[in-house]
Amino acid sequence: MSRWEPNARGRLEQAALALYGERGFEQTTVAEIAARAGLTERTFFRHFADKREVLFAGAGSLQDLLVSTLASTPDSAAPIDAITAALEAAGALLQERRQYARQRQAVIAANAELQERELIKLASLASALAGTLRRRGVTDPAASLAAEAGIAVFKIAFERWISLSDQQDLPRFIREALDELKAVTAGK
Amino acid sequence: MSRWEPNARGRLEQAALALYGERGFEQTTVAEIAARAGLTERTFFRHFADKREVLFAGAGSLQDLLVSTLASTPDSAAPIDAITAALEAAGALLQERRQYARQRQAVIAANAELQERELIKLASLASALAGTLRRRGVTDPAASLAAEAGIAVFKIAFERWISLSDQQDLPRFIREALDELKAVTAGK
Repeated sequence: MSRWEPNARGRLEQAALALYGERGFEQTTVAEIAARAGLTERTFFRHFADKREVLFAGAGSLQDLLVSTLASTPDSAAPIDAITAALEAAGALLQERRQYARQRQAVIAANAELQERELIKLASLASALAGTLRRRGVTDPAASLAAEAGIAVFKIAFERWISLSDQQDLPRFIREALDELKAVTAGK
Repeated sequence: MSRWEPNARGRLEQAALALYGERGFEQTTVAEIAARAGLTERTFFRHFADKREVLFAGAGSLQDLLVSTLASTPDSAAPIDAITAALEAAGALLQERRQYARQRQAVIAANAELQERELIKLASLASALAGTLRRRGVTDPAASLAAEAGIAVFKIAFERWISLSDQQDLPRFIREALDELKAVTAGK
């Protein structure tokens, strides 16, 4: 068997999510994931450090996209508008993989340890956004607040989007949640 | 030796924080905490499940105070104003124990696992506040957004308050952070 396997990473990801959904994250082994994907454990470990990593490997590229989009918005943009542009870009990316996102969310919702990891991921994203705003000259606490508010908006928009059975526009949910936050903070 | 020890809980808490600060959370044992407090391990375990619990035992009463204050604000109050009233009450409580809060924060900042636990605590507080708003008839996403925004405001106000060397008014920082959030979301 050749060491090179076409789309090994995607096949492993798909197999892992299917198994996590069928029998639970805890009960699934790397050996089972590799077997379901028609690959070896050795191939699995070339792509992922462990079975949890399958669910969080995308966090780095999501953060890169958020930070690079935020950094490239015009300096004249208000912090919250720059954050919104970044979140919409991330939303557009996630939207392309809605089925994956839904499966992943269901697996995470069923496991306390994974929920903790997801919270840490969101906190890291907020921290990265706040740091990027500070490098753009936004002072604290405005930088931290804009970033934390942005992540709260993103989280709530994502949950609404994922809970709907029919395909909808995630960036639109993000804009709507932001409008709602504006109304809420204005005391409406 | 009598089984009843005056202020055993407070002595254990103080001993634990001192040791966590001196030698690190990981390196401290329950036996050492008990010895420093002049108590037995058995007494420790009558008060705390483990050494981590010493740092998070107050989370329940903090949540109770937030929820009960929120639930008792007039129905006519806007969600964000009701949340602010709850956060100010929590701030007034924390303020009474500033030295403890500073020591605790330093211990948590030095340990990744404790930071995760703190994130979970904040997420639980947000969830409890959102649930209380929903019971007051606030619909989603407004309830979730007001709660998440409130916790973001609280977190940032708390960090500013704790980082200052001189005694300051925490509820005032909370109101200022909220005003800042209003300005940020309004695009300023």
